[in-house]
Amino acid sequence: MRPSVFFYLTYALCVCLGLLCLLFVTYWNSHWRGGFSWDGSALQFNWHPVLMVSGLVVLYGNAAVVYRAPFTWKQKKNTWKLVHAGLMLLALLLSILGLCAVFDFHSGSHIPDLYSLHSWVGICTVVMFTFQWVLGLAGFLFPCSTTWFRSTLKPVHVWMGKAILVLSLTSCISGINEKLLNGSSGEPYNSLPEEAKFANSLGILTVAFGLVVFGILSRNKWQRPDTDSESSFSYRELDFK
Amino acid sequence: MRPSVFFYLTYALCVCLGLLCLLFVTYWNSHWRGGFSWDGSALQFNWHPVLMVSGLVVLYGNAAVVYRAPFTWKQKKNTWKLVHAGLMLLALLLSILGLCAVFDFHSGSHIPDLYSLHSWVGICTVVMFTFQWVLGLAGFLFPCSTTWFRSTLKPVHVWMGKAILVLSLTSCISGINEKLLNGSSGEPYNSLPEEAKFANSLGILTVAFGLVVFGILSRNKWQRPDTDSESSFSYRELDFK
Repeated sequence: MRPSVFFYLTYALCVCLGLLCLLFVTYWNSHWRGGFSWDGSALQFNWHPVLMVSGLVVLYGNAAVVYRAPFTWKQKKNTWKLVHAGLMLLALLLSILGLCAVFDFHSGSHIPDLYSLHSWVGICTVVMFTFQWVLGLAGFLFPCSTTWFRSTLKPVHVWMGKAILVLSLTSCISGINEKLLNGSSGEPYNSLPEEAKFANSLGILTVAFGLVVFGILSRNKWQRPDTDSESSFSYRELDFK
Repeated sequence: MRPSVFFYLTYALCVCLGLLCLLFVTYWNSHWRGGFSWDGSALQFNWHPVLMVSGLVVLYGNAAVVYRAPFTWKQKKNTWKLVHAGLMLLALLLSILGLCAVFDFHSGSHIPDLYSLHSWVGICTVVMFTFQWVLGLAGFLFPCSTTWFRSTLKPVHVWMGKAILVLSLTSCISGINEKLLNGSSGEPYNSLPEEAKFANSLGILTVAFGLVVFGILSRNKWQRPDTDSESSFSYRELDFK
């Protein structure tokens, strides 16, 4: 099989798993949790898992692999750097909105913020993601950035890109688990009611999506070739190698 | 700074974080959870987090980076393949023992098995780890393994190595969170008692350890050079690149 065909098959799997994650997290919160609202109630909380899975996992994962598609390799690297940065910004904004949803709900229901390990890991993820985005903008998109700064930043950007994905998956799984432990459809979680089976499956789909993204990023043959003449600096490792 | 000095500083950080994880998980379960036993009681359960953090995270992470130490590069690759396989086997056995501890406790206390998302992800991790170990033994240590099989297995082994570490971290964080949600020191988790702060810190240390391991594996300069004459097959990517 040609490498590009194998890439597109793997990427199709990645897109399908991502769409399934979005479908599952939306259905879970609308069918079993009463739907959505923005009024400080439990219905506002329901935006939290939807926005976190959409932003921190699905959109983030897709933005990370955007350089890998062979059809982009003949186009200007700068265009795809802007697409990468734009998708990442959207992912970050969705995540921050997801945090607002849970803080508003806590405030309305007099629940303390940031006590669970899930929340500690989750807040670290969003802080690290914000830091990574600002540093990436300064290093790789600002024209005044020096070659020394870019080459120093490159391995840190690559490592932090993967670290944020690991933290996102960890936050999502511990979050879904926490929500189900706090009560699922009125029946105890350990009797494994329909909702629990469905939301556990969402967790498995989320992890599967993340691992396929890791698979795409790990394969050296799928890296954008170093033929871009727009810069003397090698962006090879920027593809989250 | 010379690359080898930077490696050993990062590796020292990895070892220190690993030791802190072991210390924290042992202290948590002996000081706040009543210590250890092997009698089907809650004291048998306490072995579960200790064995999982020790085996699936700390020992696994150390076994993954074993090829990276520059002092090993002048020695035979086969010796270090045996060290890698031996440490991984020990990590796998500790993880299986950790599963036995929780299944025995559930059986003694009439608690259903495998209902939570934590348990679903955890069991997937150990099954995938077992599969990876057997496949690695067959592909890279059995002398009758063909070059075609090794070169086909290589990228799968590299990807699965990282995938198992992601799954291990996800399982550990969701597991610590679950245990604390089920009650910490008699006080509610959301009042953040001493135990909760301590165990949350264990979670953060565990994630930090995993991310340092990812950092070591991501750095191309720290890969074992391809100078080994014992095989015509390139093992370069076997270092969990």
